[in-house]
Amino acid sequence: MTNDYQFTLDFKVRDYECDLQGIVNNAVYQNYLEHARHEFLLAKGVDFADLTRQQINLVVVRAEIDYKKPLTSGDHFYVGLNFSMVDRVRFAFDQRIHRLEGDVLCVQGRIIGTAMNARGRPEIPKGLVEQLSQ
Amino acid sequence: MTNDYQFTLDFKVRDYECDLQGIVNNAVYQNYLEHARHEFLLAKGVDFADLTRQQINLVVVRAEIDYKKPLTSGDHFYVGLNFSMVDRVRFAFDQRIHRLEGDVLCVQGRIIGTAMNARGRPEIPKGLVEQLSQ
Amino acid sequence: MTNDYQFTLDFKVRDYECDLQGIVNNAVYQNYLEHARHEFLLAKGVDFADLTRQQINLVVVRAEIDYKKPLTSGDHFYVGLNFSMVDRVRFAFDQRIHRLEGDVLCVQGRIIGTAMNARGRPEIPKGLVEQLSQ
Amino acid sequence: MTNDYQFTLDFKVRDYECDLQGIVNNAVYQNYLEHARHEFLLAKGVDFADLTRQQINLVVVRAEIDYKKPLTSGDHFYVGLNFSMVDRVRFAFDQRIHRLEGDVLCVQGRIIGTAMNARGRPEIPKGLVEQLSQ
Repeated sequence: MTNDYQFTLDFKVRDYECDLQGIVNNAVYQNYLEHARHEFLLAKGVDFADLTRQQINLVVVRAEIDYKKPLTSGDHFYVGLNFSMVDRVRFAFDQRIHRLEGDVLCVQGRIIGTAMNARGRPEIPKGLVEQLSQ
Repeated sequence: MTNDYQFTLDFKVRDYECDLQGIVNNAVYQNYLEHARHEFLLAKGVDFADLTRQQINLVVVRAEIDYKKPLTSGDHFYVGLNFSMVDRVRFAFDQRIHRLEGDVLCVQGRIIGTAMNARGRPEIPKGLVEQLSQ
Repeated sequence: MTNDYQFTLDFKVRDYECDLQGIVNNAVYQNYLEHARHEFLLAKGVDFADLTRQQINLVVVRAEIDYKKPLTSGDHFYVGLNFSMVDRVRFAFDQRIHRLEGDVLCVQGRIIGTAMNARGRPEIPKGLVEQLSQ
Repeated sequence: MTNDYQFTLDFKVRDYECDLQGIVNNAVYQNYLEHARHEFLLAKGVDFADLTRQQINLVVVRAEIDYKKPLTSGDHFYVGLNFSMVDRVRFAFDQRIHRLEGDVLCVQGRIIGTAMNARGRPEIPKGLVEQLSQ
């Protein structure tokens, strides 16, 4: 299952990420998804923080997230990620969160992003797409 | 504009909500949207925390969020919300985040939720829909 | 009581700030305290984000926090703040969090901060102390 | 160095934990410290979430934290922890955060905690201290 993804990252739920329902708060899954994307970028030699310092801002323009099963205290899970281009300036990250115990699909998301230059216009840095697609 | 919504809630960006890009982090908008939903529920006499203690869990099953313009340090904004039923067990919150300065639409979201009983099955508490639709 | 402070700021607990104990998570009180400090600075004409862009970093060097009573879902509270200088380069914020209902002291903290210049050395911008002490 | 501690836990900074200064936000270090404490408890056979469900609430009553050097995007670090009893009902966690690169001490903290029973009174569950001190 794991090897169906271009990239995976292991996590464990931290208690402060759970809310008063005793399960991981909805917003926190976006943190997990973002961290997995940034680690994927790093693995491809693209450093999000460095780009930001160079005034190239990678931004999310749309998120679609299906919450299927909640994660809770102590759960081990991984985020799987596939990267593709939607068009010339937008990329898609298809991401899933799997709980290890029982191999349960917890969250499924599609995150659309782009890069903005210093003037706030979409502009993909030269070579970025090739780097991420290798 | 404000009165096109069934409910609105005023906010101000807090600096700790901004990330290293100097703008509000993507996940934080879900916090804003959630808080606005819970305040809408309260205004209708429905207390999220009380329901949780009664083992009725209001949960999000899907979120679609379009990020149009970022909020940043010091921004005043409001969340507007419209509630409707999608089918017998699922409700929709159509929510928008407007920055006050320049009346800019920053985020547009559609959050689909349901209620789960103690056995983890969708079950809307009697009277809840009527209460929220008044 | 409120007027014993140089500055106060009103808040309401948001449900996502509560953890699996059903009360506000310990780390979140630091968010509240920080936001109150930054709003105090703004009220004195000092913009934390602007200073950051000018490479003047206001930083916390020590925090002492006593947790007396927890806040929980729905609580209205305020943060009271007094500012003073500890020595030539360090300032102190004595801050308290009071729940409105029953006027309960929930948290008491002393936050020591300084300003760092672009080379990472403590250096208070000229006029800052006077501005904050007015 | 690592083996001077009763327990250590490895971490990596996640970009969403950094604020507009480009460094880890002050409140986030409390998250790190809390997660390390809960993993220490687990390693000793004590499950924080389970205790909570049994209405035994482990709570922090005081935190003293010295911020020495900031962590930033991409940093690998570990939290070291020593546990001891302050008196019959209060325990202390002496915790430090070390950045791996250059073995830099970033944060030093002393967190005082206790256990509260269902009536909100300090009461350490029988056997807990022995379990944690082994």
